[in-house]
Amino acid sequence: MPYEYEKNGQAIYDESFATIRREADLAGFDADEEQVVVRMIHAAGMVGLEKHVRFTPGMVAAARKAMEDGAPIFCDARMVSEGVTRPRLPADNEVICTLHADGIHALAAEMGNTRSAAALEHWRDRLGGAIVAIGNAPTALFHLLNMLEDPTCPRPAAIIGCPVGFVGARESKDALWADQPVPCMIVDGRLGGSAMTVAAINAIASRKE
Amino acid sequence: MPYEYEKNGQAIYDESFATIRREADLAGFDADEEQVVVRMIHAAGMVGLEKHVRFTPGMVAAARKAMEDGAPIFCDARMVSEGVTRPRLPADNEVICTLHADGIHALAAEMGNTRSAAALEHWRDRLGGAIVAIGNAPTALFHLLNMLEDPTCPRPAAIIGCPVGFVGARESKDALWADQPVPCMIVDGRLGGSAMTVAAINAIASRKE
Repeated sequence: MPYEYEKNGQAIYDESFATIRREADLAGFDADEEQVVVRMIHAAGMVGLEKHVRFTPGMVAAARKAMEDGAPIFCDARMVSEGVTRPRLPADNEVICTLHADGIHALAAEMGNTRSAAALEHWRDRLGGAIVAIGNAPTALFHLLNMLEDPTCPRPAAIIGCPVGFVGARESKDALWADQPVPCMIVDGRLGGSAMTVAAINAIASRKE
Repeated sequence: MPYEYEKNGQAIYDESFATIRREADLAGFDADEEQVVVRMIHAAGMVGLEKHVRFTPGMVAAARKAMEDGAPIFCDARMVSEGVTRPRLPADNEVICTLHADGIHALAAEMGNTRSAAALEHWRDRLGGAIVAIGNAPTALFHLLNMLEDPTCPRPAAIIGCPVGFVGARESKDALWADQPVPCMIVDGRLGGSAMTVAAINAIASRKE
């Protein structure tokens, strides 16, 4: 006998989001933030994630405004850039990952850093007013913070800081949260990754559920 | 003052994997499985994930053999197919996602199912001996199980069953685990997603850490 299951995409979304809103503790978030956190919980399949998500005040509105104004979205990994749902973007925004740019291995070697960090050097000229989404590499987030220590480096409109893992993830997000060079959000600790990061981008891009 | 942090990719991997092996309870896994689970924990930033991972006996060896023999790897989402580290693949294997194939919206409408499920219809002819990796959509895993109820449908060599979320994820993985139509692995419950799925593929593809 074939399995019977819910096959309607919108019904699946509706039931998923209702379940999340019933189970998760979302009282600490404003309406904009709540919508982002719900989508992140959905992507991770993890009620409880909300305890780890923090926003600077007005971050979601600032990031959404930048997207509406056509800001490019710079991503540290192709799993992030490929996950962004293009029809949700308000201004047909460019979604850019430079991890495989020509010469990136040589540049990383020259910098004595990872390819993920080296890739950010290709963002510098267009960083002003952009959205930055770090969903994989702590070294990318640390390098971004070091770039922004230079007052001549253009300022992004907002930073989504969700690198994941066991070495540098917690530390790089703590550093972002201490510095707050521009409006930003983080998933604290070891958790993070491309799925949560993509969910945050997709939620900021459009309120549609 | 610029931040100081570990910039050597191999050192980051080594320290991460050592931390995971110190903290996670891996006693229930054989050597092949352990290597897969460690990489999945790494991708998720989540010690404790191991409690949710199950393999049928010999699944890792069967999947690795199929890859070495040149099996294509079918993925339900581009975040999965894009995440696979190509140099790790033993036979320059094809990594295929058909979610954006021509006519997929019309096919989904005709089937009364999601695009994720409809995309599998494009796999059927090459499914024999292939690796199947479901890292997003419960509907894709359910549809695969229904396809395999037809004895004339070619059998994949192995199934990585890691759809994520709140509607159908648990149920579809429970169904896979009950049926076990071919060697398979699952992350049980709501957890899953592209990062864990990619980690499993990458670990099966190569023992290199």
